[in-house]
Order: sequence, then structure tokens, then C-alpha cells
Amino acid sequence: MSRDRADRVRQILRNIQADFAVLSSPDSVCYVTGHSVPIEIGPTPFAGGPTLAVVTRDGVVGLLRPSHEVSSNIDVDFEILFDGFTGLDLVDYAAAYLIAAGKFSKALGLSGRAAVEPSTYPAILTDVLGTPGNSIAEKLIMARATKTKEEHILLEEAARIAAVGQNTARNIAASNLAEIELFGRIRQAMEVQAGHRLPVTADILTGVERTAAHGGWPTARKINRGDPVLCDLGPRVSGYWADSCGSFTVGEPSAAYERMFAAVKDALALAQSIIMPGLRACDLDAQMRGFLNGKGYSYPHHSGHGIGASVHEYPRIVPNQQALIQEDMVLMIEPAAYLPDVGGIRLEHMFRVTSNGVTPIAPFELSLGV
Amino acid sequence: MSRDRADRVRQILRNIQADFAVLSSPDSVCYVTGHSVPIEIGPTPFAGGPTLAVVTRDGVVGLLRPSHEVSSNIDVDFEILFDGFTGLDLVDYAAAYLIAAGKFSKALGLSGRAAVEPSTYPAILTDVLGTPGNSIAEKLIMARATKTKEEHILLEEAARIAAVGQNTARNIAASNLAEIELFGRIRQAMEVQAGHRLPVTADILTGVERTAAHGGWPTARKINRGDPVLCDLGPRVSGYWADSCGSFTVGEPSAAYERMFAAVKDALALAQSIIMPGLRACDLDAQMRGFLNGKGYSYPHHSGHGIGASVHEYPRIVPNQQALIQEDMVLMIEPAAYLPDVGGIRLEHMFRVTSNGVTPIAPFELSLGV
Repeated sequence: MSRDRADRVRQILRNIQADFAVLSSPDSVCYVTGHSVPIEIGPTPFAGGPTLAVVTRDGVVGLLRPSHEVSSNIDVDFEILFDGFTGLDLVDYAAAYLIAAGKFSKALGLSGRAAVEPSTYPAILTDVLGTPGNSIAEKLIMARATKTKEEHILLEEAARIAAVGQNTARNIAASNLAEIELFGRIRQAMEVQAGHRLPVTADILTGVERTAAHGGWPTARKINRGDPVLCDLGPRVSGYWADSCGSFTVGEPSAAYERMFAAVKDALALAQSIIMPGLRACDLDAQMRGFLNGKGYSYPHHSGHGIGASVHEYPRIVPNQQALIQEDMVLMIEPAAYLPDVGGIRLEHMFRVTSNGVTPIAPFELSLGV
Repeated sequence: MSRDRADRVRQILRNIQADFAVLSSPDSVCYVTGHSVPIEIGPTPFAGGPTLAVVTRDGVVGLLRPSHEVSSNIDVDFEILFDGFTGLDLVDYAAAYLIAAGKFSKALGLSGRAAVEPSTYPAILTDVLGTPGNSIAEKLIMARATKTKEEHILLEEAARIAAVGQNTARNIAASNLAEIELFGRIRQAMEVQAGHRLPVTADILTGVERTAAHGGWPTARKINRGDPVLCDLGPRVSGYWADSCGSFTVGEPSAAYERMFAAVKDALALAQSIIMPGLRACDLDAQMRGFLNGKGYSYPHHSGHGIGASVHEYPRIVPNQQALIQEDMVLMIEPAAYLPDVGGIRLEHMFRVTSNGVTPIAPFELSLGV
């Protein structure tokens, strides 16, 4: 693993005249160390605080993690463990965490001004690692928008897993299958492909009413013949997310659904044809939204977003986002249309921005036919 | 929902002479409000900080949550939302969080000394809701050990879902099935039963070597005929966890495995016969461990633990835990045996402590036969 990502953090530290960064969100920890913090069951009861990464202005990278947390593919100069799950001992987790944080600070030679992620930096660390006055959060979000070589590889791998999920959805969706069962089988296909468990975001919507409402986790609702299906899947693989959305019907679509599908597909093709470095995110949004409005359709959500170690990253493609699209961004593009009597269609694909356009990442089936 | 749980927090506030509690861990938020914070994909990228619950010494209960977070069955006096996922707007999440926290403080009339959970209390809140000097964490952990009437109902429901998982594991485990596929199908059966997604902890181990090593998430390893299987499942349902572990073989067990199984089952029966209010956790541990040691077996982990809104709660049943077992605790009891040439067996069941013994909660199949 190269230090390209940690180097971006160092650059920010120089700009804001801070001496070291303390990163406490799972995505930022992964960003600078490669360590994928387990998130699937929430905060572990066996830790006195969050897993941390530190980057100093000199380029030293450190990881502070609970002893039971498995790490692989990490690249750090120091790794300090704190007592996590133990076999037989009673542990004062908060005390163990603070002691380890102190050792961590000493091992890394931390002194001077800290820059932190205020939303996740626990107050318990203030005495040991510094006050939270100096935020690195906003600048880091922007620095992460263009992806390094290694990140492109990670995102492509995640996209391949998402494509397995999308193809499975099309293959198995059938009358009488409940949304939650459809989701379980989709997730299983992705996890079998990966060989291990995966955190997954998922809107699994079936039927006219649910798809027209555009978002929501799977329920016990059973698919009826003719139902539209909207399947928005985001697996996290090795700490990096993919995102995707497919739309189709179980059985023959209505003529109105077919027309709407063609319009959304054309909006996606339009986006693909115009995205290039220098385009403003708001202009991309306006063109996609305007195209669909011209056909009598609309969608009440963003036209897309960045993606990386977090499933939604800067820039968000919305009317007020002035940011310029840049080479090496990876963007989710997701035109959509929702009508109460027809249902909802969203087609979301991942694109890598190149010097003069975009390359689709792991395309899955976009046609209407199942 | 009664205020039994919030009342326990008020009692602590009186004891430690604090005026209000700010609860920032998902489990404590659920404990006092009934609100189940989504945890399956880690911290949402659409929030400037964690969902919070506040309890004042006067018994006012408040919930601060992101606008997109669905809540049901909650019982609070004030609910303040902060900007979470929005359709089209660009949100400064950190700023929105702080503004909402300020409104929250005002609506609840907070003043005086705050008591917080230091490991999860974000430093960003210090100016708005108080300094983290005063910790409620340890006392709250102990107050949560005995369960209220409503908690018993929630835990029983979670246990029923876990039993569906355990019974599914026995029914479907077969040669050539990969651990990750076995897990996917088990999880799916539990989610179909619940009608929605569930966070799930899981050790899914197959084969002599893996089961003898006693812990680990499912891998791509495929089951062979004769393999021991160890299936430790903990689903969270409506904010409350169950836990469970079954052990069996695919095909005929070896004579050594059969002997070991009988010993572990006897250790579980022994525990069931001796647990009652007043027994020290360490003595329970010693009796279970001693019984198995006498048969030539051992296990390198705790003999059990409390369970509730967190999957592991006080008291942990280990050699140094002096705590007395009390009526209305819900305890996981998990005797086990591991031998390098035979494999591993762990039998973990949930028990409610009554005035003079225990009641098993949602027992699943404990016999060796598949």
C-alpha cells in the first residue's frame, strides 16, 4: 500500500497548521491505514472508545485498535492495541482505552496542535490526544473526492460484488417472494462471492406504491405478478463501498412503465455523455433533471454522489453544489422517475471520471427485460 | 411503554448528584427511549453526531435523532430532529447537529451538571450539553443488569428469532455448503421471521480445526461429511439482543465428540440447577469450569454474561466477578469444550433468573442428533 492517502492528510495538516490528525470515523481510519473497522453490529461492547488512526505532519501513521479486531492489508508505522474482548479477564474498557491512547501518543511522539473529526472524536480523549477545536473534517472530505490508484482498485472490486447482487436480483425476483427474502438471497450471493460477511445498504422496494416512494429497507411485502421492483444495493468490501440501483418488473411491464424506463435510461446515457473534468456538479444535476422533467418525470433526490470509504462522499450532485467534477473522481449517477400510478424507476451506476469523460465500473444489466 | 428504565437513570442521577444524563451509545438510547438506532452500516454519513437520549432528574426524557431515522414504539417527552438525509439540499451536518442539540437543551430545560457516557460522548457537544467529567457509564451498566417487565418481553421475542436461526442451522447444514452460505441462509430465516433486517453477531465454525479455535465469523470453508459445526448466533430485534450457540455434526459424530457433547450438556444442566439469586457469578463460573475440568475438558472464555440492549452486559460470568446473581437478570450460560483432535462444542442458552432458580427462554434443540 502506498502512502498516497496519508500524504493528502499531511498536506491538509500543513495548510491548517496543525501537527497531527486524529481520525475517529471508520471511513477515515480505513482511508489512511487500510484497516477496515467492523461496523455491522454497531460499536463493540468490548472497547472503551473508537478505533483511531493518527497521521503526523512528518508522515508517521499509527493505528489504535481493540485487541480482538482483525486487521489485514494495513500499512502503518505503529499499531497499539487496547484490551478488547478477553477470554476470562474483567476489563475496565474506558481505563484500558485511555492508557493505550496515552502509549499511542508517546509512541508517535505527538505534540502540538491536533486536528480532529469533531462528530466522532470522543470527549474522553481530550486530555490525552488534544482538544477538538481544530477540525480536519471538511478539508478531508474534499481531499478524498478524487481517488488514488489503490482506491480505484478497491472500488472496482466492490462494484463487481454489487453487480453480482444486481444480477441475482433479476434472476430470482418472482411472484410470492417477500422483499426481505429477496434481499436475503441477494446479500447471500454477494457474500458467497466475497467469501465473508459484508455490510450492505439496501432499498428493496416492490409494487407500484412502494417503488413510487423511492426509498426504504426490505419488508415482509410479497411480490405480485407485474410488480415493479427497485433494488438499490451498496456492499462494503475491504472497507470500500459500491452502490447501484436496478429497476425491472416481475412479468410484463405496463406501457407507461416501459416509457418511463426508456426516459430514465436515456437520462443515464445523457449523464455518461456529458460528464468530464470541469463540469459543475449543479450543471450535471440540472441537465439530468431537466431532461426528465421535459419528458414529464421527476425525482425528489440527488442526481448522484461521490463514493469511497464512505458510501456517500463529496461532491453531492444537487442543484446547489458548485463543485467542479475532476479526473479520478468516482461518481454514482442515479437518474430516476416516480409516478404514483406507475411506480418508481432508478438506474444508478458507478463511473470513474477520466481526463475527457467517464468509464463505467462493473456495469450490470440495464435493460428492462428480466 | 412504562418509564421503568428511565426511572433507573433518574435514581443514578440522584446518587451521583447530577442533573441530567446524556446517553450517546445506541444501546443506552434504546434503553431509555425504546428507539432502536440503526447500526448495520456503521455511523450514517448523513449525521453530524450520534443519536442522543437525555433523562433529567425530574424525569423528562428526550430524543435527538436524524430526520431520516425511523422510530417506533418510543416514549419520550420531546423529540428534536436534526437534518439527516435530505433530498436535494446541501447540509452542513456538523453545524445542523449542534444547532439541534442547542434547541434540544433548551426544550428540555437542561442546566446544571451533566452525566455522560464518556466513550461515545462526542467532544463536539461539550459546549452545548456539558463537559464529560461526570460519567454515568459504570452505574448504568450495573442498573441495567436486572430487566424490567418490558425488557423481558423484548428479550423473549429476540430469543424466539434466535431459535429460528438455530433450528435452521441444524436443518440445512450439509456437505459442501460453505460457512458463509450456511450463515446467509440462517440469517435469512431469522429476517423472514422478523419481517425485516436484523443486525446479527455470528461465530459460524465448521470442521475440527475451526471449531476447536472457538470463535470467528463465517468464511468460504466448505463443510465436509463428519464435520463438527459450531453456530453462535445473536440477532438484535427491536433494539434487544438474543444470543445462542448450538453444536452438532454433519453426519455421524465420533465417539470422542459424543462424549464431549454429553459433558458440555451436563455442565449446562448443572448451571441450570444451581443458578439462583444470591449465587456469586464467580462461583457459578467455578462450578461449571470445575465440572468440565474434572471430565478432562476446558474452555478459554467466560461461562456466560448478561444481555439486553447490548449483546454483552453486566455481569460477566468469569473467575474474578464477585457480583451476586439477582432475580430478573437474563443470563447467557455457555459451557464449552475444545480439543484439537475432536473439535469444539459450545452450548449457549438464555435464562431468566426467577426468585428461586431459572427459566429457559425459547429453548431450541439441544440434542446431538440432526
